[in-house]
Amino acid sequence: MGIRTAEEYIDSLRDGRKVMFRGKWVDDVTLHPEIRKAIDHASIDFKLSDDPRWKDLFTYAEDGNIYSVFYKVPSSASDLLQRKRAIEVATTYGKTIVTLIHEIGSDAIFALLRIAYLCDRKNGTSYFERVKQFYDLARDQDLAIAVAQTDAKGDRDKSPKEQPFEYHYLKIVKRTNEGIVVRGAKVHTSVSVNSNAIIVLPTRAMKDGESAYAVSFWLWANSPGLTLVASPYLSGDRNGNEYPISSKHKMFETVTIFDDVFVPWEQVFLAGETEFAGLLALAFVDFHRFTAVSYKLPLLDAILGCANLIARYNGISNAAHVREKIARLIVYVQTVKSLLEAGARAGHMEDPGIFVPDSVSVNLAKYHFATNFHTALRDLQDLTGGLLVTYPSPQDFEDNIVGELLNKYLATSYSSAKERMQLINLISELTASDLSGYHSVLAVHAEGSIEAEKIAITRGYDVDKAIATSLYMAGIQDEPVL
Amino acid sequence: MGIRTAEEYIDSLRDGRKVMFRGKWVDDVTLHPEIRKAIDHASIDFKLSDDPRWKDLFTYAEDGNIYSVFYKVPSSASDLLQRKRAIEVATTYGKTIVTLIHEIGSDAIFALLRIAYLCDRKNGTSYFERVKQFYDLARDQDLAIAVAQTDAKGDRDKSPKEQPFEYHYLKIVKRTNEGIVVRGAKVHTSVSVNSNAIIVLPTRAMKDGESAYAVSFWLWANSPGLTLVASPYLSGDRNGNEYPISSKHKMFETVTIFDDVFVPWEQVFLAGETEFAGLLALAFVDFHRFTAVSYKLPLLDAILGCANLIARYNGISNAAHVREKIARLIVYVQTVKSLLEAGARAGHMEDPGIFVPDSVSVNLAKYHFATNFHTALRDLQDLTGGLLVTYPSPQDFEDNIVGELLNKYLATSYSSAKERMQLINLISELTASDLSGYHSVLAVHAEGSIEAEKIAITRGYDVDKAIATSLYMAGIQDEPVL
Amino acid sequence: MGIRTAEEYIDSLRDGRKVMFRGKWVDDVTLHPEIRKAIDHASIDFKLSDDPRWKDLFTYAEDGNIYSVFYKVPSSASDLLQRKRAIEVATTYGKTIVTLIHEIGSDAIFALLRIAYLCDRKNGTSYFERVKQFYDLARDQDLAIAVAQTDAKGDRDKSPKEQPFEYHYLKIVKRTNEGIVVRGAKVHTSVSVNSNAIIVLPTRAMKDGESAYAVSFWLWANSPGLTLVASPYLSGDRNGNEYPISSKHKMFETVTIFDDVFVPWEQVFLAGETEFAGLLALAFVDFHRFTAVSYKLPLLDAILGCANLIARYNGISNAAHVREKIARLIVYVQTVKSLLEAGARAGHMEDPGIFVPDSVSVNLAKYHFATNFHTALRDLQDLTGGLLVTYPSPQDFEDNIVGELLNKYLATSYSSAKERMQLINLISELTASDLSGYHSVLAVHAEGSIEAEKIAITRGYDVDKAIATSLYMAGIQDEPVL
Amino acid sequence: MGIRTAEEYIDSLRDGRKVMFRGKWVDDVTLHPEIRKAIDHASIDFKLSDDPRWKDLFTYAEDGNIYSVFYKVPSSASDLLQRKRAIEVATTYGKTIVTLIHEIGSDAIFALLRIAYLCDRKNGTSYFERVKQFYDLARDQDLAIAVAQTDAKGDRDKSPKEQPFEYHYLKIVKRTNEGIVVRGAKVHTSVSVNSNAIIVLPTRAMKDGESAYAVSFWLWANSPGLTLVASPYLSGDRNGNEYPISSKHKMFETVTIFDDVFVPWEQVFLAGETEFAGLLALAFVDFHRFTAVSYKLPLLDAILGCANLIARYNGISNAAHVREKIARLIVYVQTVKSLLEAGARAGHMEDPGIFVPDSVSVNLAKYHFATNFHTALRDLQDLTGGLLVTYPSPQDFEDNIVGELLNKYLATSYSSAKERMQLINLISELTASDLSGYHSVLAVHAEGSIEAEKIAITRGYDVDKAIATSLYMAGIQDEPVL
Repeated sequence: MGIRTAEEYIDSLRDGRKVMFRGKWVDDVTLHPEIRKAIDHASIDFKLSDDPRWKDLFTYAEDGNIYSVFYKVPSSASDLLQRKRAIEVATTYGKTIVTLIHEIGSDAIFALLRIAYLCDRKNGTSYFERVKQFYDLARDQDLAIAVAQTDAKGDRDKSPKEQPFEYHYLKIVKRTNEGIVVRGAKVHTSVSVNSNAIIVLPTRAMKDGESAYAVSFWLWANSPGLTLVASPYLSGDRNGNEYPISSKHKMFETVTIFDDVFVPWEQVFLAGETEFAGLLALAFVDFHRFTAVSYKLPLLDAILGCANLIARYNGISNAAHVREKIARLIVYVQTVKSLLEAGARAGHMEDPGIFVPDSVSVNLAKYHFATNFHTALRDLQDLTGGLLVTYPSPQDFEDNIVGELLNKYLATSYSSAKERMQLINLISELTASDLSGYHSVLAVHAEGSIEAEKIAITRGYDVDKAIATSLYMAGIQDEPVL
Repeated sequence: MGIRTAEEYIDSLRDGRKVMFRGKWVDDVTLHPEIRKAIDHASIDFKLSDDPRWKDLFTYAEDGNIYSVFYKVPSSASDLLQRKRAIEVATTYGKTIVTLIHEIGSDAIFALLRIAYLCDRKNGTSYFERVKQFYDLARDQDLAIAVAQTDAKGDRDKSPKEQPFEYHYLKIVKRTNEGIVVRGAKVHTSVSVNSNAIIVLPTRAMKDGESAYAVSFWLWANSPGLTLVASPYLSGDRNGNEYPISSKHKMFETVTIFDDVFVPWEQVFLAGETEFAGLLALAFVDFHRFTAVSYKLPLLDAILGCANLIARYNGISNAAHVREKIARLIVYVQTVKSLLEAGARAGHMEDPGIFVPDSVSVNLAKYHFATNFHTALRDLQDLTGGLLVTYPSPQDFEDNIVGELLNKYLATSYSSAKERMQLINLISELTASDLSGYHSVLAVHAEGSIEAEKIAITRGYDVDKAIATSLYMAGIQDEPVL
Repeated sequence: MGIRTAEEYIDSLRDGRKVMFRGKWVDDVTLHPEIRKAIDHASIDFKLSDDPRWKDLFTYAEDGNIYSVFYKVPSSASDLLQRKRAIEVATTYGKTIVTLIHEIGSDAIFALLRIAYLCDRKNGTSYFERVKQFYDLARDQDLAIAVAQTDAKGDRDKSPKEQPFEYHYLKIVKRTNEGIVVRGAKVHTSVSVNSNAIIVLPTRAMKDGESAYAVSFWLWANSPGLTLVASPYLSGDRNGNEYPISSKHKMFETVTIFDDVFVPWEQVFLAGETEFAGLLALAFVDFHRFTAVSYKLPLLDAILGCANLIARYNGISNAAHVREKIARLIVYVQTVKSLLEAGARAGHMEDPGIFVPDSVSVNLAKYHFATNFHTALRDLQDLTGGLLVTYPSPQDFEDNIVGELLNKYLATSYSSAKERMQLINLISELTASDLSGYHSVLAVHAEGSIEAEKIAITRGYDVDKAIATSLYMAGIQDEPVL
Repeated sequence: MGIRTAEEYIDSLRDGRKVMFRGKWVDDVTLHPEIRKAIDHASIDFKLSDDPRWKDLFTYAEDGNIYSVFYKVPSSASDLLQRKRAIEVATTYGKTIVTLIHEIGSDAIFALLRIAYLCDRKNGTSYFERVKQFYDLARDQDLAIAVAQTDAKGDRDKSPKEQPFEYHYLKIVKRTNEGIVVRGAKVHTSVSVNSNAIIVLPTRAMKDGESAYAVSFWLWANSPGLTLVASPYLSGDRNGNEYPISSKHKMFETVTIFDDVFVPWEQVFLAGETEFAGLLALAFVDFHRFTAVSYKLPLLDAILGCANLIARYNGISNAAHVREKIARLIVYVQTVKSLLEAGARAGHMEDPGIFVPDSVSVNLAKYHFATNFHTALRDLQDLTGGLLVTYPSPQDFEDNIVGELLNKYLATSYSSAKERMQLINLISELTASDLSGYHSVLAVHAEGSIEAEKIAITRGYDVDKAIATSLYMAGIQDEPVL
């Protein structure tokens, strides 16, 4: 096969999966209005692969077949830059919401290829071949894939085996000749309700005595024992004028419960090799934070575009403080962009032949994005004005008399009331709505927290060299280390 | 009279006012579900005046009558501190939403007393007596009052008379023996749908040739020609579990249209005295920013309380970065508190006998609040985790099987799943919802923008003394100015 | 007596004290060029007490005598504000360098009065009377006093008794009928080389088993066994043009070594009462941080004055970024000022009748000062330009030909080259010299570090109330705590 | 030739140049103690070219000759990375002071090659050949070169032709058949006293009517009419213990006065082509900011090394706030590094075959370096403690008795007093001395100000695309621009 159409994708989701939404079981996700919105949004990926303008960017050819570009194993900086651009384009059409159904799964597969290879070489296991087979399947069938990584975790000050509840981290409860049985719950699983398959990864390094928690595998979304409890966040009817983004675009997260789910051996990628749990978690992150920042760029562009445009509409483009704020926003956005591209360009080859982004640069990109995002929202709110939360409703404009008055009073020389309200509604959604809350929480937590990024950046620093430099300069040592 | 009950207040709102909500005229605001929420919220003020625990704080006696404390003209720092405390208590019961129906009106009246006094002395007008009469009326009838100040404004780079549309600022279109007729629109008018009366103030200083825009008065909310177009922001059904605040507490804003509204002279407080327009706007702000920061304190307390509590529930209280973040939050909150109280304590008497808060301190309090609020939200999101936007719904917990599993997986040693979810829902509402957007836009714009505060702070600085100090130290001048 | 003249003060320093400077013993501190500079600087205090313009501010009358205002035990907010103003004036004449010889000693005495009172009441000791006697002596003889508080400390991760070297904290090594013998070293002792007496305070709380470290007393600067090792920092010849401040104004610090120094009982204020060591350290800080911020204000004024003036001289006053930077500086300076004055106004009475500044406000003032000082220097450097470190020498201007050219090339329409260079030299000294280093290290460490301030601020916060607020808002508790 | 020895370099400086230092003419710069320090420092460059360990890095071969690597015209990212590494190594040996005598000149030559090429193509001039000839000369003779760019400038709010003094910008006052005559003064000319030649560049874009100011050329340092007025900043005797850096390493700046200096045509690179003045200034900056950030890296490494080491020596490595501060420093340093390397890797080819660093990335690197440098100094001061400015002198340690006591009191379990003092002296010099002032002013102003960097970053942003994105998302436009 290779590339699916949007219709084929949608049809494939009618598979009897167990999804609960607001306490009720969902019979057919494609018929559920909230979930359908997420499905339609995810379809962007398939439509772009089929769109003459975007085909070349979103697909690649190999052995005579055409595949989704997201399944191209990167072998150079320019592969990474193409991947970044595809994510940017899809997310721009998704109006700041990433599609994710190809991105996250391929990020996980690239990590699994690397770690399975290492594990096999060290332990004589045969995981690599299994990952490779799953990769072929995913690529050939153009699968939509979710990744379930973050465990329920329980007490954060305790490791998996110290938890009061044994299953606060997903655990292998049985091993048979045919496979393993797992129990536990993963939280924040994005796009699981509208994916075909789910890859499970460990969320952290494991210690001695925690081998039953060192587990990775894939399974179909309709596997017995698997329950997807969908979050109600950002749901509810939304007027397209007031909510230009979330009225049409949506990503779903679930609490994903594994109640003694059986996984056949050929789908198992790690089962007890403690030392590789942490490596796998990190290897995933190497790719996934690159994806993460790639899909933030359209959001940043939107913020910057809105800032420029609303300043113009309001007639304040030339005020000193406005110019300073816009300059500050540009510095912010350019920093994130430049560091992300540095991550691609400064990448390197890893066994078995995968070009991996530079971890420090990518983590810096994510860190700067995350730590400054909230003040960027503040600055955009500042430029826009109080109408962000006091705007009259779109329906008021339809009243003969009131509508006419509003059109007069809310227009400026630089924009009609209608365009100004459209822009203000967009900015309201981007900075002062639950969608804005979603983006800001994602900034802080998704694809790893600010603290996780700090650790990755710190780990990349050569402290010993720095100390040697200072010892040399202090005259305590005769030579620096260079 | 003096103090009204909540019922009396609610009854008084059935007065035939013209309110539009989502394109439809509202017959009786007390029967409209959205507006009723705002009315019930505002009733807190009346209930507390009647509550044995709070009576002493919320009322004061004069000439044998008992009045709302908000109508007490401040004559000392401790009056201001009592006012602050009353606002804090009401807003805590309002779960971060201020009641405002007494606060903003009395702020305006205090300003009007000052400026009318000055204007009369300068121009021989008789505004002071009119203001005094309105003050007596408001106090005696315990009126709920809105203040309409911010004009539609049009092009921000132009003054009122330069606007393309003549009525972008509210304008006197006719003067008769009986009164004046005004046309224009004010935006962001808070609590107008549930107030008895509306005070109109100029939004800025006026220049020569703009005397028709230098206008202030009061009028009943049901005055002919007055239309209140209510914002749909934050409306819609809200589950009390997911939205512990906005399901019960609400403040309404309107675009307030004056379509040739007649105002009798005895209700007019300024009509053409150009030089007093700016002074009146500033005098209002002197009191209103003090109110503003007073009502922010419960929000800051909630943020800090949530930060401590969620860190404990999650088991991360002892992590280095957590302690640093909480310390940073405390510094933030204490700075705002300390500056606000400094504003009361460093206040001074102004003619005709009103104790005015220190402008620089209050503006600094507001400025620090506003510029750091968004990063405070970020830090609280950081401590809480991704469940803020991926939480399962309250209904899921009611399912026999799924609910039991969620209760196990989401509990920690330090909290049940139920309490943890309650707290996370609160934090989600405070940091990642439209209510959070409302609070953050209010932080930046309400009661004056960050730029307005910067100007007030800058104006309070004695630059000449500073320059003299540097000239002395540079040896250019022989003596400093001290 | 009461008030001394500068001459009397200077004469009193010829007392045979043991001072080492750059490895050599100093016979007479009044004849040593570096130390003499510090003495002349400290004389400002005595001169202002004698100056008709300043007498009223710098002295007070009691029982028919005139004393230095610094020895007035504060009994109201206005006493504290007067104290602040006197410090400001003296430091302005000292061109940003505080005189300190009255301020720090009286800060310590006020603290000792409070803690001796408490200790006596608890333990039946008789320290209060001794402190009172020393206070009378100091006030009557107008003593210049240093305070030695910070111990050598050794390993910061260990308490006094855990140190590898027993005397890393000053320790009582013998108790006799006549007094105690102490051994140890205090660092950073300011103005000890030019004070008459030295007060010793514990630097921190002590634990069980550390009673020998819980010690406080006073002694004359020439006491046997006492060695003052003066720091060479900021010493060396300094041209008055290039160094308008440090060529004339200086404060000295010493490592102060107590090599078995005998202290008679009547001079001992604490000797073994472990629980009061920490209280005494904190009580000192309550006053001393108030002094600290008071003496920072002329520095901040100078920075702000220089910023305005150099912008004008350079012709950039109207540039957008310049206005933003100056506004930012004003906000910074006003925040520090407002919080400091809040500290005075929100103070309270403590036994035995001393008006103590509000700890939270004062610590916030110090914290904002300290954490933002370096960026204020950056902004001032930014406005000034590279000539700060590339200026031609004053001597070049005296050359007939070169001087004339420089005068042409370095003038602007807004200033002569001479004035511009004078100002640039001042700014260079304030932002890019060892004096600037001194000020910035003092900002971070003097009178307690940033971390110490953070702890004091945090301790002042009512976390339980904040938690109760959040429990109420989350619906977990029925009522807030108010 | 190709590579010179240090001796050859030093000899070449005895050329009769006119240097004034503190009002006196310097006969022979190699015999003047202050200037000799700068010469010896600059010699590092020549020594490293001759050092077997570093030869390969510091030289390159072409046509059978060996040249300084700084004269290698970059043709790839790896050329830029080698250049960066050479600058890092030389500056580490220079203990944070760059040598600059090869770096800045070659930066200017690369810019001249580009702009002369463009100008010739546009205007039919023959500048390119002249630049090429100078390049050959500089490379073959291994010249030490200074660049004089920043004019005296006068009133910053006026352009060159509007200045009150005609020569506030360097101006062509005569054109003859042989060459041009120029008058004016350049400030902040680094390393001019110890360079062989000086390249003159315009400092800004010129407007119509300012062609006489659009001038660029090179000349020998001893050219008639040229006067170098050396800054006294950072001069004076310096003990090697207290000043481990500036006692041996130094860079000199001059006010460089051109008093009717004649420049033969073959040395002129621009003379009146107004439109190329600004382009040349910018083209220089493209390379020179890359140099700038390269030479900041050893300073940043030293800061980070000192932070780690002093925390260890003081015994505070495990404190929460210390770990946070060090993490913050690492994020800062890594951001600068990563952006700088991104500048090399994202570079591109420009006519006539020069690989130019990516302007946005390099400017971002410089901007982050400059805006956060002062707080990095603050954090390092914070970790170190007050001894930074109160340390006893090295001579005190030589006293038999006092020295022994100091050695005991100032040691910790983690370091001897000697090593701790060596490190503290280094940190004092890096954070609290005139050298620290020098570094911090350079951070803000050298190689372009913070504002200049902001402009370069802003200019690199595609605002139109961002606006199109927001128009698409607001529903105002049907398609984004991608």
